[in-house]
Amino acid sequence: MFNTFGRFLKVTTWGESHGPAIGCVLDGLPSNMPVDLAAVQKELDRRKPGQSAVTTTRNESDTVELLSGVFNGKTTGHPISMLIKNKDADSSKYEALKDVPRPGHADYTYKMKYGVVDYRGGGRSSARETAAKVAAGAIAKQLLSRYQIKVTAFSREIGGVRTEGQFDPAIHGVEELIESNPVRSFDADAARKMEDAINEARKNGDSVGGIVEVWATGVPAGLGEPVYAKISADLAWALMSIPAAKGVEIGAGFASAFMKGGEMNDAIIKDKSGKITTKPNNAGGILGGITDGMPIILRAAFKPTASIHKKQKTINLKTGKETELTVEGRHDPCVVPRAVPVVEAAVALVLADHALISGFIPRKLPE
Amino acid sequence: MFNTFGRFLKVTTWGESHGPAIGCVLDGLPSNMPVDLAAVQKELDRRKPGQSAVTTTRNESDTVELLSGVFNGKTTGHPISMLIKNKDADSSKYEALKDVPRPGHADYTYKMKYGVVDYRGGGRSSARETAAKVAAGAIAKQLLSRYQIKVTAFSREIGGVRTEGQFDPAIHGVEELIESNPVRSFDADAARKMEDAINEARKNGDSVGGIVEVWATGVPAGLGEPVYAKISADLAWALMSIPAAKGVEIGAGFASAFMKGGEMNDAIIKDKSGKITTKPNNAGGILGGITDGMPIILRAAFKPTASIHKKQKTINLKTGKETELTVEGRHDPCVVPRAVPVVEAAVALVLADHALISGFIPRKLPE
Amino acid sequence: MFNTFGRFLKVTTWGESHGPAIGCVLDGLPSNMPVDLAAVQKELDRRKPGQSAVTTTRNESDTVELLSGVFNGKTTGHPISMLIKNKDADSSKYEALKDVPRPGHADYTYKMKYGVVDYRGGGRSSARETAAKVAAGAIAKQLLSRYQIKVTAFSREIGGVRTEGQFDPAIHGVEELIESNPVRSFDADAARKMEDAINEARKNGDSVGGIVEVWATGVPAGLGEPVYAKISADLAWALMSIPAAKGVEIGAGFASAFMKGGEMNDAIIKDKSGKITTKPNNAGGILGGITDGMPIILRAAFKPTASIHKKQKTINLKTGKETELTVEGRHDPCVVPRAVPVVEAAVALVLADHALISGFIPRKLPE
Amino acid sequence: MFNTFGRFLKVTTWGESHGPAIGCVLDGLPSNMPVDLAAVQKELDRRKPGQSAVTTTRNESDTVELLSGVFNGKTTGHPISMLIKNKDADSSKYEALKDVPRPGHADYTYKMKYGVVDYRGGGRSSARETAAKVAAGAIAKQLLSRYQIKVTAFSREIGGVRTEGQFDPAIHGVEELIESNPVRSFDADAARKMEDAINEARKNGDSVGGIVEVWATGVPAGLGEPVYAKISADLAWALMSIPAAKGVEIGAGFASAFMKGGEMNDAIIKDKSGKITTKPNNAGGILGGITDGMPIILRAAFKPTASIHKKQKTINLKTGKETELTVEGRHDPCVVPRAVPVVEAAVALVLADHALISGFIPRKLPE
Repeated sequence: MFNTFGRFLKVTTWGESHGPAIGCVLDGLPSNMPVDLAAVQKELDRRKPGQSAVTTTRNESDTVELLSGVFNGKTTGHPISMLIKNKDADSSKYEALKDVPRPGHADYTYKMKYGVVDYRGGGRSSARETAAKVAAGAIAKQLLSRYQIKVTAFSREIGGVRTEGQFDPAIHGVEELIESNPVRSFDADAARKMEDAINEARKNGDSVGGIVEVWATGVPAGLGEPVYAKISADLAWALMSIPAAKGVEIGAGFASAFMKGGEMNDAIIKDKSGKITTKPNNAGGILGGITDGMPIILRAAFKPTASIHKKQKTINLKTGKETELTVEGRHDPCVVPRAVPVVEAAVALVLADHALISGFIPRKLPE
Repeated sequence: MFNTFGRFLKVTTWGESHGPAIGCVLDGLPSNMPVDLAAVQKELDRRKPGQSAVTTTRNESDTVELLSGVFNGKTTGHPISMLIKNKDADSSKYEALKDVPRPGHADYTYKMKYGVVDYRGGGRSSARETAAKVAAGAIAKQLLSRYQIKVTAFSREIGGVRTEGQFDPAIHGVEELIESNPVRSFDADAARKMEDAINEARKNGDSVGGIVEVWATGVPAGLGEPVYAKISADLAWALMSIPAAKGVEIGAGFASAFMKGGEMNDAIIKDKSGKITTKPNNAGGILGGITDGMPIILRAAFKPTASIHKKQKTINLKTGKETELTVEGRHDPCVVPRAVPVVEAAVALVLADHALISGFIPRKLPE
Repeated sequence: MFNTFGRFLKVTTWGESHGPAIGCVLDGLPSNMPVDLAAVQKELDRRKPGQSAVTTTRNESDTVELLSGVFNGKTTGHPISMLIKNKDADSSKYEALKDVPRPGHADYTYKMKYGVVDYRGGGRSSARETAAKVAAGAIAKQLLSRYQIKVTAFSREIGGVRTEGQFDPAIHGVEELIESNPVRSFDADAARKMEDAINEARKNGDSVGGIVEVWATGVPAGLGEPVYAKISADLAWALMSIPAAKGVEIGAGFASAFMKGGEMNDAIIKDKSGKITTKPNNAGGILGGITDGMPIILRAAFKPTASIHKKQKTINLKTGKETELTVEGRHDPCVVPRAVPVVEAAVALVLADHALISGFIPRKLPE
Repeated sequence: MFNTFGRFLKVTTWGESHGPAIGCVLDGLPSNMPVDLAAVQKELDRRKPGQSAVTTTRNESDTVELLSGVFNGKTTGHPISMLIKNKDADSSKYEALKDVPRPGHADYTYKMKYGVVDYRGGGRSSARETAAKVAAGAIAKQLLSRYQIKVTAFSREIGGVRTEGQFDPAIHGVEELIESNPVRSFDADAARKMEDAINEARKNGDSVGGIVEVWATGVPAGLGEPVYAKISADLAWALMSIPAAKGVEIGAGFASAFMKGGEMNDAIIKDKSGKITTKPNNAGGILGGITDGMPIILRAAFKPTASIHKKQKTINLKTGKETELTVEGRHDPCVVPRAVPVVEAAVALVLADHALISGFIPRKLPE
């Protein structure tokens, strides 16, 4: 109930930031699907810390080990267990936080809820958990790609710098373009400004937030289950489950609240090839909780990193006294660039789940 | 899997817009809880059509019948079944829509998914389903109120008119104030402008969207289950499951993407009574997916009603030819005022669910 | 969690023995399936009380009302809600039981668990709930029959009278034979003896138990999901959920505990048509939790009816004093004949569920 | 859905017989519970192969590694991940079985279902999976023991040798007595005969089955949820999920089918201390799916080991031709002695699950 998600394709994650390892169990995959472990590692490399100046300096190789569910390179239909060892955990800075909750973090709520808290590196509340999700999502991506479904995310906004213009997933090499800059923008100019905004904040001991946008293309019409397994709701849930997410929207999203019906409604028309399509896709590919065959478009808002090197007011829960805290340790000054592959993983898992539920992807892949 | 939601306290809804009835089964309530059926009816009356000039003219009394789960006025711990008869369904306008999907509606996606579609009044995709949710939510509200938890929603924005100023749930009579105007705003001036915006759109055969804001007060710290049953994600899911919802945010929400960590982080301090509190509650009452004891604040964006009396491009799925459609029938020119009690119901159900999961509310209420 | 079962095809039941009605919601059916409501009624008629001298005299027509999920005679893929009114409830005999739990009944355990108990006719613990299951199961049977899967149950043993000989589902008219006697035996001689045993017990104010055997034929190989959704375990669960069930076995069952491997193992051979088959099917059609294409064979043991007209020792929970009780009211002297259609319903629901999970039955039936 | 069980306390297992490792994730435990890893190892030692002449000679230390969820020796409320490396897998004997399904095994059904089968040592269908369940169950046992609930199983029958007499859990040292003989009987005479029966079968290249009986004492009244989460049904499900189980019964079980109501019904009386009790507990501690405070008594029938050194008829699935097979490799001539700790684990997990659901065990243990 608590650390498992998915309706048919289920992901269970486990592990703490400074424990011996983290990992996941991915259950419900069809049998007979080739698994490319190097491609899983590549996704983990996109998320891992220490990639650039705009990320934390914690140095983890995040090497994935595959422990079950694959035989002769193909899925058997049984659970895939993957494990990632924690190698560069430094718990020395956290002893001071034992009784002093960091503002903006889960320290206080975990303490209230559980009593016992593994405070080292945030324990279970650490975004390190998302590595396990990325590993599972990488396999979901491989499954989807066999059915021409592709999931691509990028930073739409960071530190007040917004990339204007519609994303075009059809542009050749657009993924490489996004990966070519440390902030993961498809616009090189915006990328530089975003990087500047992050570095500026870091120098001031502060942090910035941003918005990740994600597109899923090649999605057939008919995925999603009304009324309480809408793919829109499941996607929103998955994005809001990512640490630091504070908002999510689909298609025109919050802007639709300011539109008229005549503006918002997408016309149902035929494209040049005669295929039914909608225009301009304000719906973001989903109507009534079911995909309409157009690209799915979502945006998630991430708050600025809670760990900042500034004095903040808090309370010592042991003494009950007000105090001030400056958070030490290694932190990302902005979570958005590393959240990009996490968003992709979350979306890929939900899409694969619904593709299996709807029967679009069968339980046994053809040989 | 499809028409049931909740983890512990489960709601199953059923019924179509023009079928004989709609209803719900609410399962997982504690035993020994007094049930006030008149209060359930009152919530249904808030949602029912035909209340004012800004809603549809379909005339439904939405009288609720209680069929099980209550004995001598108290819950037995067994499922509560409630039924609402459809009395004023007029299917005459829908025969023309049999093969012609309305833009912005689920007609096309349902047809693609199911083949068989009950096209009368939108069938299962109709927002009429939300009456069943409101009935279930009304009982969840009664349960929560026994534990001093209160859920209050209102229209934050309609048709471009935004109510400024923070909502204050402590103001005496604020619920009555909200109910005193047809748009459900806590600001009488804004209410008039919102009403004008709706009427203006209706005259033009068009519709407007808006934003509902909801507050839950009295929520204890410790509700929510990381990492895949976060109360933030569950709340976002519940709001995105409401028809026409296109976005949801918590606390500072999308604005947090433009903030610095030093602005966003809430200080952890003591209030005058010595109780631990946070300020200014940018977190919206949730940190790490767990409540922190502050008011929960959410906003949901609703698109303008898809049914408009304007010519729109669509395709006749039988002939495969492009055509134009003007939607007939009775419709709300803005769904937001009637969405307010639906949002409250959705939030109340999620909170009651998590209050039971966490053990904050016991399985058997004290006598 | 509590009143819903099924993994993909979900049944939720509600209602008490002496409440206004009972009913169910069946969710997850494929769309485009013709629904024969008369056939549902026929199954309810098999289960309803007052059919013969060996059943209770409570007189219920058990007329089913269909409230949703079917349009133009076919499923829409949305939940089917069915309702059965209680018409002949006589609560007069139950006031005396308010504080005095009947031995062998759930009165004591419900009181301990819930505090509030609807003691009229057993309330929610009454086997009247199985009418709702039979209605849902009748629709599952219709779905299965489209795929040549048939479920047939009969009384293997009643009151110490055991029908010897293997059941042969291929005999023409075997279902009619079973229905032709009030105890539902496929052996007319045994039937008479079983009837005598029941009548003998009734005359003495006592009751008898028995064993129901059920066969599912036409089941393809490959249904069931190891290791925690084995179809064997799910079937055992479903049978043990029927009131008064105290044991369940598959194939050779308990006898296998006394066998050698060389006796127990079924040979894998080809039948005359060249189809792979096993012999003699000691496995009961299931190996490793997955169907092997042979008939599924299960047996469920039912205890004698707990309501007997004999003095029994119990305790008045209000006074805390020991007392004696003779149960009044109308009761079946043996539940087994009426349990036969309930067992069929339970098995049909599990098979339909797994047929959908495995993809053997699609989400949208061909037109 | 497939490799996870439990409603609130969830166990997910993964791994194949000859893969690098097997393991489990146990999620939903209360926080603040001391975890004794040595006691987990002790349970694994009871189940591990190579313990005596009556078990397989595969030599596994089954050393458990704890990877998450425990901090300073106590549960944090987050998932516990445990891993057991496979060290003595010998796949050499299995290449011959690639296309030739062994009678009585899951080889054929897995092949039909998945296409891809890890045939080495039975792959995922191997009873090796139960080691992961025993690890999880060992922790459930520790939780239950804090609430005076104890689960004890033993061999009631093996190879036709039945231990007569009622088990008495109150006898001092009865667990040690059970553990003192290789077949796990509480009767030393019966134990010798059982051992003889196993050795006799092994000499003949054959195998024997048996019956495990399990008692849970100290269980409070009120665990279990009608009507579709009955603890009786959940326990039956858990036992039927164990490899080789073909039947399960509660209390008087199948014998109740031959009893009269007057014999079967337990009298509700007071014991010497004034506590409400039932006699003679034919119900096996469960009425209406809810515990009544008496010992829970269950029996599970296990078929003889399917792997035997005798010629058996089967079919080469590649050539489609009938053939004969003699199973090589190391196998238990009787699974029952090693099934005893597995049965205990399964029962402990279900009881802990329901104790949490009912609120009898809180989400946060007192410090």
